[in-house]
Amino acid sequence: MQVIKKVEELMSDAKWLVFQEEYNKLNGKYETLFALTNGYMGIRGTFEEGSEGERPGSFIAGIFNRGEAQVRELVNVQNWMRLKIYIEGKEIRPDRCELLEFQRILDMKKGVLFRKTVVKDDKGRVTKIEGYRFVSRSNRHRSAIRFFITPLNYEGVIGVENLIEGTALNSATHPKYRVKHLKVVKNESICKSGIYLETATTDENKRIAVGSTLRIYNLEDINRENIAFFRRFIPLGENSAEYLEFKGEREKTVVVDKFAVTYTSRDVEKDLLKNAVENDLFDFVSRGFDEELEKHIAEYDKLWSVADITIEGDEEADIALRFNIFHLMSSVNEKDPWVSIGAKGLHGEGYKGHVFWDTEIFMLPFFIYVYPEAARTLLMYRYNMLDAARRNAALNGYKGAQYPWESADTGMEETPKWGFDYKGNPVRIWTGDLEHHITADVAFAVWEYFRATNDIDFMLNFGAEIILETARFWASRCEYVEELDRYEINNVIGPDEFHEHVNNNAYTNYFAKWNIKKGLEMLNFLKENYPDYYYAITHKISLTPEEVEKWKEVERKIYIPYDKEKKLIEQFEGYFEKKDYVIEKFDENNMPVWPEGVDVTKLGDTQLIKQADVVMLMLLMPEEFDEETKRINYEYYEKRTMHKSSLSPSMYAIMGLKVGDHRNAYQSFIRSAKVDLADNQGNAVEGIHAASCGGTWQVAVFGFGGLEIDREGTLNINPWLPEKWDKLSYKVFWKGNLLEVIVTKEDVLVKKLEGKGNVKVKVKGKEIVL
Amino acid sequence: MQVIKKVEELMSDAKWLVFQEEYNKLNGKYETLFALTNGYMGIRGTFEEGSEGERPGSFIAGIFNRGEAQVRELVNVQNWMRLKIYIEGKEIRPDRCELLEFQRILDMKKGVLFRKTVVKDDKGRVTKIEGYRFVSRSNRHRSAIRFFITPLNYEGVIGVENLIEGTALNSATHPKYRVKHLKVVKNESICKSGIYLETATTDENKRIAVGSTLRIYNLEDINRENIAFFRRFIPLGENSAEYLEFKGEREKTVVVDKFAVTYTSRDVEKDLLKNAVENDLFDFVSRGFDEELEKHIAEYDKLWSVADITIEGDEEADIALRFNIFHLMSSVNEKDPWVSIGAKGLHGEGYKGHVFWDTEIFMLPFFIYVYPEAARTLLMYRYNMLDAARRNAALNGYKGAQYPWESADTGMEETPKWGFDYKGNPVRIWTGDLEHHITADVAFAVWEYFRATNDIDFMLNFGAEIILETARFWASRCEYVEELDRYEINNVIGPDEFHEHVNNNAYTNYFAKWNIKKGLEMLNFLKENYPDYYYAITHKISLTPEEVEKWKEVERKIYIPYDKEKKLIEQFEGYFEKKDYVIEKFDENNMPVWPEGVDVTKLGDTQLIKQADVVMLMLLMPEEFDEETKRINYEYYEKRTMHKSSLSPSMYAIMGLKVGDHRNAYQSFIRSAKVDLADNQGNAVEGIHAASCGGTWQVAVFGFGGLEIDREGTLNINPWLPEKWDKLSYKVFWKGNLLEVIVTKEDVLVKKLEGKGNVKVKVKGKEIVL
Repeated sequence: MQVIKKVEELMSDAKWLVFQEEYNKLNGKYETLFALTNGYMGIRGTFEEGSEGERPGSFIAGIFNRGEAQVRELVNVQNWMRLKIYIEGKEIRPDRCELLEFQRILDMKKGVLFRKTVVKDDKGRVTKIEGYRFVSRSNRHRSAIRFFITPLNYEGVIGVENLIEGTALNSATHPKYRVKHLKVVKNESICKSGIYLETATTDENKRIAVGSTLRIYNLEDINRENIAFFRRFIPLGENSAEYLEFKGEREKTVVVDKFAVTYTSRDVEKDLLKNAVENDLFDFVSRGFDEELEKHIAEYDKLWSVADITIEGDEEADIALRFNIFHLMSSVNEKDPWVSIGAKGLHGEGYKGHVFWDTEIFMLPFFIYVYPEAARTLLMYRYNMLDAARRNAALNGYKGAQYPWESADTGMEETPKWGFDYKGNPVRIWTGDLEHHITADVAFAVWEYFRATNDIDFMLNFGAEIILETARFWASRCEYVEELDRYEINNVIGPDEFHEHVNNNAYTNYFAKWNIKKGLEMLNFLKENYPDYYYAITHKISLTPEEVEKWKEVERKIYIPYDKEKKLIEQFEGYFEKKDYVIEKFDENNMPVWPEGVDVTKLGDTQLIKQADVVMLMLLMPEEFDEETKRINYEYYEKRTMHKSSLSPSMYAIMGLKVGDHRNAYQSFIRSAKVDLADNQGNAVEGIHAASCGGTWQVAVFGFGGLEIDREGTLNINPWLPEKWDKLSYKVFWKGNLLEVIVTKEDVLVKKLEGKGNVKVKVKGKEIVL
Repeated sequence: MQVIKKVEELMSDAKWLVFQEEYNKLNGKYETLFALTNGYMGIRGTFEEGSEGERPGSFIAGIFNRGEAQVRELVNVQNWMRLKIYIEGKEIRPDRCELLEFQRILDMKKGVLFRKTVVKDDKGRVTKIEGYRFVSRSNRHRSAIRFFITPLNYEGVIGVENLIEGTALNSATHPKYRVKHLKVVKNESICKSGIYLETATTDENKRIAVGSTLRIYNLEDINRENIAFFRRFIPLGENSAEYLEFKGEREKTVVVDKFAVTYTSRDVEKDLLKNAVENDLFDFVSRGFDEELEKHIAEYDKLWSVADITIEGDEEADIALRFNIFHLMSSVNEKDPWVSIGAKGLHGEGYKGHVFWDTEIFMLPFFIYVYPEAARTLLMYRYNMLDAARRNAALNGYKGAQYPWESADTGMEETPKWGFDYKGNPVRIWTGDLEHHITADVAFAVWEYFRATNDIDFMLNFGAEIILETARFWASRCEYVEELDRYEINNVIGPDEFHEHVNNNAYTNYFAKWNIKKGLEMLNFLKENYPDYYYAITHKISLTPEEVEKWKEVERKIYIPYDKEKKLIEQFEGYFEKKDYVIEKFDENNMPVWPEGVDVTKLGDTQLIKQADVVMLMLLMPEEFDEETKRINYEYYEKRTMHKSSLSPSMYAIMGLKVGDHRNAYQSFIRSAKVDLADNQGNAVEGIHAASCGGTWQVAVFGFGGLEIDREGTLNINPWLPEKWDKLSYKVFWKGNLLEVIVTKEDVLVKKLEGKGNVKVKVKGKEIVL
């Protein structure tokens, strides 16, 4: 058997670590920061023993349910993680004991969460409880916890209760919205030892099956002989539990290994679920905790070998950036094309686990350049939801495919119709009805992926169909205005959500135009290069030459509001007539302060905007706008952007760097990188800001790292380093080649690490061939 | 509608009140002290909002289940009592807020539990939450809570969550023994408003159905118009919940009335349960909280009009005694002859809700003399279990009826076979196999009841059969020893449980003899006075004259170990040969200290005893022993009794008073009266010491009050008052007449309050006729 590594022996260097030094009211934040996920499932960083005010969460990608909730939501499934400790029958919990020592440490290199506690109970008994847990990246069904329990000043019977908690609720802390999505189907013991809890979602009877067992032995016993002298399985209604006892001896360390295995009816036929869990659990236990842990760490090593970015000279930024990358890459399951990454990852219940444009626009670039296989899988999710998008379009009276603003497992629109303001008054939420740009964002992401990877197989079989069906949507969505001989897109919400029911949002119209154009190009491309695919796809989607002609007309005549004199793109028609307030003051965090006199209940009447909109457009389509236009629009909108979305500052930072405004770049980067670490939005408890993770990576690589694709499709590198940074190095895949970029104040070094053939790149405008 | 009484307006005089002044670690004790029960159901005095470390408990008489437990146990059923409060969505609990004021008060006169709290949350919002609750004695299915909620320094949305918690477990705090006895069958809303949770016991599918609803209105609104603007029913797995919101205004008091109704499949056919709950709940709500409360208080008034005992000059004793009487009389349901009172009442899980000799020997005298109707019902429980007792006897190879040492709902033996010592080692529990005296104790109780009430209807139809079948058991239980020409009862445990597997325990043998003799007398009595009944019963139980002849022989020849010279009854054969230790030291509570040199693991080898045994015999059968014998034996055993049962000191106190030893009487009385109030055994949390309640009453009435029946069946009154007592007055029923006895230091006054015909009593040896 492998040697057991104690906490200190397993832990990586400081640059890989995130610490919690105090047990306090911030536990909720750390539950998110310390959430572990492998893209298949995620578990929040709650304490194994339970703790006052905790917000436990256990999620499985693709397991959604509506039940009594407003919309389908990611189900908080039964929690495999509970492990309670009793000394002479008395429960020991961090919130009920004196904490003589306390530390938790996330090891990002290994995807392992460590804990070091020394607790003193009310009888003065002092116990050291150290340990670690992981959610395996190797076999994604497996997860495990190891405790090292050492009675420091006593001896006595120590009890360990292994629990799978089926009492989980969604919105548990909100009495008004609490929902139970699961019914317990089986609460049984496992023949080969252990406990088994199978639940079913209330609507579709999807099954979630979790098995778990413990192994208890002395640390110094290399044979790991069982020392538990008592074991009892107890089905406790919605909880499955087994209770074991062993004799604790003074200063003698006992190891408790908890093994857990999770399968769903998405993985295995219902009738075979228990069998699957039993077999995998027994195999897991037989091979041992350490073998799985090693494989898990090896997977992380592989991921980091490309994903890691090093910032020298700025440890804070270095670790914070790594933290964002860690959670982003942990959240994906490159093997499951039926799920995507929700706005809060698998880290919390925020946004109900729904997928927004966040994935395609903010997160996907990271995967395209660092982990193309996963990027393709994420796009395959959209392809698999294409039929639903067709249905969405049809339901709304359009042609082609309309992607939902909020997407879950079915691909139908899942945006709630109503929310509540801070006074509890109902507020109609219009984004699901009106924020149409998502459909073009998906098509755009398909193109971005293809451009960076040349994955022609994906494009021919899947991507092209998305581009064509979304183009078709836009052609049907645009309304012809005869008087003006132009096509308009009225009554939408653009990326800036302060303004609802606007006409001709520049971002939306531009993307619609682009989408139709790309559709037309795609048809030509297929016809010329892959005629079989051309015929197959046009027949499949019943696209006639007449309809294509119509597309051309629409594309030509889509109206983009633009002030030619000032070179200012108008965010939407009539925007410039709104009351003009300019931001002049900033708070202690350099965040904009509402200009004096603004009525915050009527923001739609002002030119103040929530987040990057026109700037976003210019950022995503840099080749469409000249430098002057970018600068002028950046300067205009920057003064009017309230940054009420966590995604906004990072986008301005990148654009600022591109137009030569470096003032806020570093601060915006740090704010974005630490949105969860510092909880500067105050909502980290709801889950990770996954889009912000992607945005942070983009600032590092597209902003400071200066990566950009020019009009000719060539990779440009025009870096700029903040003052305190000595060196920035990152790696990207470009058309199948792995490149490493090392930027110092003096120099830029680009290396090709993998790939055959020549790669042309432009560094600071100078073309080089690798 | 009735006027709403605020807390202060409803509360009785101080002599009726028990206070909790601090929220602290003693909450568990107060959960027992403040448990409310009506004999049908009981609910522990937990906080409505929930609180760290609480031990909630909700019990229904007669609802037992074995499931995964060792033996059948009283099920901790779904808890109707939960009522959570949220300010602007944030939960308010006593353990999570600052408690600016805190008080809970049990009003024993009215059977109402009051609470007065002022809580400050972490946002500085101060809320006064006062209220009261009751478990109706009028309609036993009904219970209710009233909250007065007053925001003192804020206004905002206040949420109230009405919960029925089906997550209840038995032994919830013991991971090793936790048991889930219930499955949720229905978790539904109630059409006319409210929530409904129906559960089923896992073994016999007994159903427990609880419905509840809230009414929320302004205190000053005499029309009680609804002010809740939001209501939502939420089935949360094992919990049923509804959540309501109203607008809290500064210094304005809102009343929240919670109504709950409980039925089981013991009351109503399964299919009609929900209907029954709905109808009763709607009727309850329509008539209103205050009407039911009034009826409930009227029932308590009726009970107290007989039960109350006044001690003047000693307020502590006065209230403590009242506390014992309160819980004793609250624990009985005179209408249900299929349940009895468990050793811990309906107040906690201690002793699994089982019925011991505690009921017949310690509690029943109170009911016989104060509430004969209830006494009869308690005996009817034993009659209804007579078939089970016959089965018990047959299973053990005996004739007649053998009552189980621990009895639940089936009447079969429910004593666990194994327990665990403080080290966790299994210990064989022999009481269920060997503590046979319970069978004679039941027969004895039948006789006691009959002697005091002359209830010939009961005796002819039920009591006689119990006496005959138990007599028959003893005749078969006794073993003939030819060499000695005597009958012996070997291998038993007497009342003193330090000595197991003893032969010829004096108490047991004497009671066996008495029981057979009483059986023979009963046969003669029936034959002479009620020949129809004689023929009916002898035919029914297949009793032949030959068998009766055998009884006579056994009765004559039962061996009673007795040292004639010393006039000392030997507790069991060979007892006097055991190592003799005499108690010489007493601790600060005047409790015996183990004599030096005693090996506490081998107490069976000593003459030290756990509790009254021979003394108990002399106390229960005073007419059988002369004064000298009583005194000698009292003195001998008193020095050897460790009082390791809470029942023991009170019995010695009574005997002491009878033989002229007044030294310990008062202290023993106070200890017994305060066993729960002061938690001097440290286990009040497990439930009320119901036998001790009865024992306390016995010390007051039989001891200080001097009530005793002499050989001729005449009521004697020979009182003795402790020094600080000025006056003691109590009431008893005697042969259908209600007598009041008023004792002062100078005088004894006996009054007949009710009843026709003359009553002869002896006061201090002087015969008077009332």
